[in-house]
Amino acid sequence: TVSHVPVMDLNSDLGEGFGAWSLGDDDAMLEVVTSANVACGFHAGDPGIMRRVCAKAAALEVTIGAQVGYRDLAGFGRRPIGIAPAELTDETIYQLAALDGFARVAGSRVRYVKPHGALYNTVVTDSGQASALVEAVVRYDSSLAVLGLPGSEFLRIAEEAGLATVREAFADRGYTAEGHLVDRRLPGALVTDPELVAARSVRIATTGEADTADGGSVAIEARSLCVHGDTPGAGELARAVRTALAAAGVRVEPFVR
Amino acid sequence: TVSHVPVMDLNSDLGEGFGAWSLGDDDAMLEVVTSANVACGFHAGDPGIMRRVCAKAAALEVTIGAQVGYRDLAGFGRRPIGIAPAELTDETIYQLAALDGFARVAGSRVRYVKPHGALYNTVVTDSGQASALVEAVVRYDSSLAVLGLPGSEFLRIAEEAGLATVREAFADRGYTAEGHLVDRRLPGALVTDPELVAARSVRIATTGEADTADGGSVAIEARSLCVHGDTPGAGELARAVRTALAAAGVRVEPFVR
Amino acid sequence: TVSHVPVMDLNSDLGEGFGAWSLGDDDAMLEVVTSANVACGFHAGDPGIMRRVCAKAAALEVTIGAQVGYRDLAGFGRRPIGIAPAELTDETIYQLAALDGFARVAGSRVRYVKPHGALYNTVVTDSGQASALVEAVVRYDSSLAVLGLPGSEFLRIAEEAGLATVREAFADRGYTAEGHLVDRRLPGALVTDPELVAARSVRIATTGEADTADGGSVAIEARSLCVHGDTPGAGELARAVRTALAAAGVRVEPFVR
Amino acid sequence: TVSHVPVMDLNSDLGEGFGAWSLGDDDAMLEVVTSANVACGFHAGDPGIMRRVCAKAAALEVTIGAQVGYRDLAGFGRRPIGIAPAELTDETIYQLAALDGFARVAGSRVRYVKPHGALYNTVVTDSGQASALVEAVVRYDSSLAVLGLPGSEFLRIAEEAGLATVREAFADRGYTAEGHLVDRRLPGALVTDPELVAARSVRIATTGEADTADGGSVAIEARSLCVHGDTPGAGELARAVRTALAAAGVRVEPFVR
Repeated sequence: TVSHVPVMDLNSDLGEGFGAWSLGDDDAMLEVVTSANVACGFHAGDPGIMRRVCAKAAALEVTIGAQVGYRDLAGFGRRPIGIAPAELTDETIYQLAALDGFARVAGSRVRYVKPHGALYNTVVTDSGQASALVEAVVRYDSSLAVLGLPGSEFLRIAEEAGLATVREAFADRGYTAEGHLVDRRLPGALVTDPELVAARSVRIATTGEADTADGGSVAIEARSLCVHGDTPGAGELARAVRTALAAAGVRVEPFVR
Repeated sequence: TVSHVPVMDLNSDLGEGFGAWSLGDDDAMLEVVTSANVACGFHAGDPGIMRRVCAKAAALEVTIGAQVGYRDLAGFGRRPIGIAPAELTDETIYQLAALDGFARVAGSRVRYVKPHGALYNTVVTDSGQASALVEAVVRYDSSLAVLGLPGSEFLRIAEEAGLATVREAFADRGYTAEGHLVDRRLPGALVTDPELVAARSVRIATTGEADTADGGSVAIEARSLCVHGDTPGAGELARAVRTALAAAGVRVEPFVR
Repeated sequence: TVSHVPVMDLNSDLGEGFGAWSLGDDDAMLEVVTSANVACGFHAGDPGIMRRVCAKAAALEVTIGAQVGYRDLAGFGRRPIGIAPAELTDETIYQLAALDGFARVAGSRVRYVKPHGALYNTVVTDSGQASALVEAVVRYDSSLAVLGLPGSEFLRIAEEAGLATVREAFADRGYTAEGHLVDRRLPGALVTDPELVAARSVRIATTGEADTADGGSVAIEARSLCVHGDTPGAGELARAVRTALAAAGVRVEPFVR
Repeated sequence: TVSHVPVMDLNSDLGEGFGAWSLGDDDAMLEVVTSANVACGFHAGDPGIMRRVCAKAAALEVTIGAQVGYRDLAGFGRRPIGIAPAELTDETIYQLAALDGFARVAGSRVRYVKPHGALYNTVVTDSGQASALVEAVVRYDSSLAVLGLPGSEFLRIAEEAGLATVREAFADRGYTAEGHLVDRRLPGALVTDPELVAARSVRIATTGEADTADGGSVAIEARSLCVHGDTPGAGELARAVRTALAAAGVRVEPFVR
């Protein structure tokens, strides 16, 4: 008999507007997720947005994480930047501390760090930038967790440095037989049907496996599911995932409070 | 008989380079001043500079203050901006928290807030923006002091809000009979002779009075003297002021540690 | 007998997204308006957006104007900035020339200049900034027209400088008995009913008069009507205005080609 | 007998300050060089600086080139950025056109394009970004020349596209036996002695050969020599190069007027 109750976190990239421009429905997503990856002003986000998202997250007991990115508003942090590791460490501390200010003002704290966009992708394989990110977290507050891709240099180096590491899976992305994400330009990369996304979420949470794009299965060990907040209907999709997880007996809880 | 030993702080605007561009000699000034007003990245300063200045300030036991400014790299924070008070509060918390991150990483803390440039001038008379600044400090950490111009709305409102307020004087600026600074475009606005600046510093520190541009005297109550760090020979000038103060029996000490 | 056929231009602020963020439906608006005020990257707009809007405007024979603003992405150009006039002239030439590059690449040219947001409001009364704007246009290309508020310092100084000046009216804004716009915070400031906006447009175009918020009439001499592109249904509203104008015998044409 | 009189251009990166920050002595360099690579505001430079440098260049009949870079003030354009080619084309047109505006206002024109920093290095080998740069020039004005590294993808693709291409050499950089620049981190990368730099300049101009770091010779075909303007004594060094070239019978002339 299985006495183990599966537990899963739902994280989403939030606070990604800037000035007069909004992106996604932060308020709707905050009602559903358990962890909010809040943009810190370098690739998106501004002080007003950061304050509001932190305040609502704190009120709803959603865990606040720093979604750090390259300094690149024009490219939304999606352009890989060959920044020197020492500079990346400094830019990360800056973002992390700024967000932590708003979290503290709201009566909460930043509890984890997740890289955004091109930085997320770069630290999967680039040890220099991955180490720079880890260094920033260690220096700022080594009790913070890091959230990232299973198998990434980022999580490996963070673990070596003694940080708490959290693996995430993507219920709306196709996986290869090796457990990698299917390239966005290929068929099967994106899953958009809410029921299917919900079912995939349940499978990952309860079995530790995901369907692959080629019809097989692959082991996906994850403590958190990333749900996107910037597409039309994102709130409903996230709600469907959460409802399905609960119905399947999964405890939906943040990985850290 | 006067048993009172006069005490004076020396503050200076530091960390005002950006990227490849440097401004002033931060290292030389940090050897002299007791309080460092460190730029926070909005009008000047970048994460690398903030880290280095905080590290050196912490090592030398120089008190770290947040020199907050308008978001205006192109204008170096010298352009008055009609920002909504609530937005100014948010932008101030952002800067303050970011700098505090580097101060903490260096084993210190931000201890006070001083506005820069056009913001400094605006909050002398603009109650809305002055209140917004005070609100930011109160929300972020009401144990922080604020440093500003005697008689300003900023200090008045900060005092009402229960913050510790510190008045500053300018040894290299001419004063009017009313105790205001002589307009920079008028004769007598700037004092550049190091001996004269040192003598004026001593007079303010020991008597609470300053010579006015028209040959009289005016009461200038100040716990801190602002010395500029961005002119050629700034380090020597600051050193001359400190030496003269010490020779006159003034204890040169930060207003908060 | 009146043989005069009334002529009216429809202008709209377009190209006001930035990077990943969009604002308004440029494509829909370009199908309706005769003049496009294209943002130039300082308060909104980026090179990709500028290229696309210019290309489509050129293809549809919509006249291209430079919508110049303060350097203020975070505030969307809505924060008044006390910039020195000489700097404002330089910043305006920069924006104007950058947009003209994309207009030329599209086989067209920038034909006029309209200030945006806080700059628009400032040059209504601030002669220094108004002169700086005019100076930029005169230096860059004195054959360009300027588009602005009737009675503004901007249009007065531009006229004195020999520039072609074009007055605009707002069909969706309430007017006072003096012909000023009703403060946005007061009742009657905004007219949102499409039929009413269309009717007001026709009245201004055919009679040179507008209803005032207090029930009277006021003379509004205008060669261009500004229609907003950033509200839901903006395309339909603009279409309704154009249709109503045409139905009333008004020739809808740009003020310059 | 050689009847051919050698001709050489001297180019330098100018206008690389920003706001309150200056870099190098533009005025001194403009007295010496024949071609000015003027920064366009993305990695350095601002509208006021662009206006002043263009005005002085025009007055001195120095040819104006657009020194285009990545949008990266914080990194001074020295961080490689994985920007999509189409976006790089747009960002290049924007910079090019903005600078051309100031050149026109000064009675001159932009005559060539040279990439800056990390972009310069990237387009040596990256065909996608090199093509994007070339595309920008072709679209904006195909009569413009491009200035770059001999053997680079940038010059190869520009030539294929029908642009005038100009090769440059570096008198103050060491060369390998293959004609590449010695890596800056290795010994022999930088030549700082003014007499030596001048002698190397003469050799390149009169023989088409340069000493290599390992004591040999290598062919360096170049129509322009890059002299740096951002080091102390840069003006004197450039002056020494120009004087030595003239003394050796080299005509110092821009490659395009």
